[in-house]
Order: sequence, then structure tokens, then C-alpha cells
Amino acid sequence: MHLDKINLKEKYSKFTKHWSPRIIAEMNDYQFKIAKIKGEFIWHDHKHTDETFIVIEGEMILKFRDSEIKLTKGEMCVVPKGVEHKPCAENECKILVIEPRGVINTGDKVGPLTINKDVWV
Amino acid sequence: MHLDKINLKEKYSKFTKHWSPRIIAEMNDYQFKIAKIKGEFIWHDHKHTDETFIVIEGEMILKFRDSEIKLTKGEMCVVPKGVEHKPCAENECKILVIEPRGVINTGDKVGPLTINKDVWV
Repeated sequence: MHLDKINLKEKYSKFTKHWSPRIIAEMNDYQFKIAKIKGEFIWHDHKHTDETFIVIEGEMILKFRDSEIKLTKGEMCVVPKGVEHKPCAENECKILVIEPRGVINTGDKVGPLTINKDVWV
Repeated sequence: MHLDKINLKEKYSKFTKHWSPRIIAEMNDYQFKIAKIKGEFIWHDHKHTDETFIVIEGEMILKFRDSEIKLTKGEMCVVPKGVEHKPCAENECKILVIEPRGVINTGDKVGPLTINKDVWV
């Protein structure tokens, strides 16, 4: 049995595009996705699943309809299913997102930022 | 809707015991657990689930029956279900473990290191 470790920095070095999550690992039917984000994403929710954000480098704001949370390196937040949220980052921020396989990044708000296929890095 | 962020460093500061995972968050039926490890754990596997290890600080060795992986800060590994493994750390290492709710840390090798209740921090 040969198992490889996954080095986040090395994985981040392989792409530059913002708001373009890349899968780095799967655990059962869940996926670990890394993303570089900068600017404002769109308001959306995920009706059937919670979604976890962990900041690996930099700083992001998770906006909710009536509050917001600033997350910096080493901080995380689990957004409950059905809760509208809007990820934002003034400067580039590197995040790790954990959610079930098949979740679409924009929820049902399909548009130019939608990624609906699995892209591994 | 009020959501809190979770700061890993702050959570680690609240306990000292080794091999004593503490839950910091739940996502659907999965749990995020932090642990401080030092020394050798026992050989075990989890028959029905994969298990994710992320090193937050320090260095650990994940031993398998025929290989081993050294994981340092910013590195992770998903141990597939049914694969025997033995976490070890020469010096204290801080890890984040992600797995379904109800998974027992020692698998079916119940003994003095077994934690079979949910402890939040």
C-alpha cells in the first residue's frame, strides 16, 4: 500500500486563477479543495450541505446577510446548509474548502463563476 | 444568524493532554478534532471510513505496515478505510483530524488510549 502526503504549499504553487477550486484529496464522499480568492464572490447557499472554510494564508471575510466573520490564517468556519454567504478577500487569500463531492461552488446561482466539474491539482 | 469563527491556536491552548482529541466543529455528520500527540500511538484501522490527518504544527510520522509518511506543518494525508496505521511523533505535534462522528480513535483496538465519547473544546 503506497500512500502519498499532500503538501498544501506545493499544490497552491500549481495554479494562479482566483475562485477556481482544485481538488487535492477525497475522504469517503467528501472532497478537500484549495482555492485562491481575491475580490468578491457571489451570494449563494448550499441547500443540502454544510461547507467548511479554513484559511491557510491571508485573510478573508465571510459575509452573511446580517453579519460577517473575518477569518485569518489558522481560522475556520463551518457554514451551515441553507445559510446564504458571500466569501470576499481584499488581498489574495488561500483557503481550504471541505464539502461533499458534487457541491457546486455557486450553489444554484449558476453564472460565470460557477465551476461544475472536478478539477484536481 | 450568528456564526463564530474557530481559531485553532486558541483551541489548542485549552488543553495539554496528548492523544486526547477534542472536537472543535461539526460539518454534517463529520467532526473536526484537534489533538496534541507525542510518542507512539497503537496500530489500528477504521473499517468503515477514511480518516484525514492535517499537521498544524510540528511533525508526525504516519506508519503503515509496509511504509511510512512524514507529515510536517501544512501537510495532510487521507488514510483509506481498512488501512492499518500508527501515528507517531518524536516531539509534540498538533494535528487536525477529520472523520465521521462516532469514529473511535483506536478503531476496534480498545485500550487505555481509547476515547469513546465526544469531548469538545
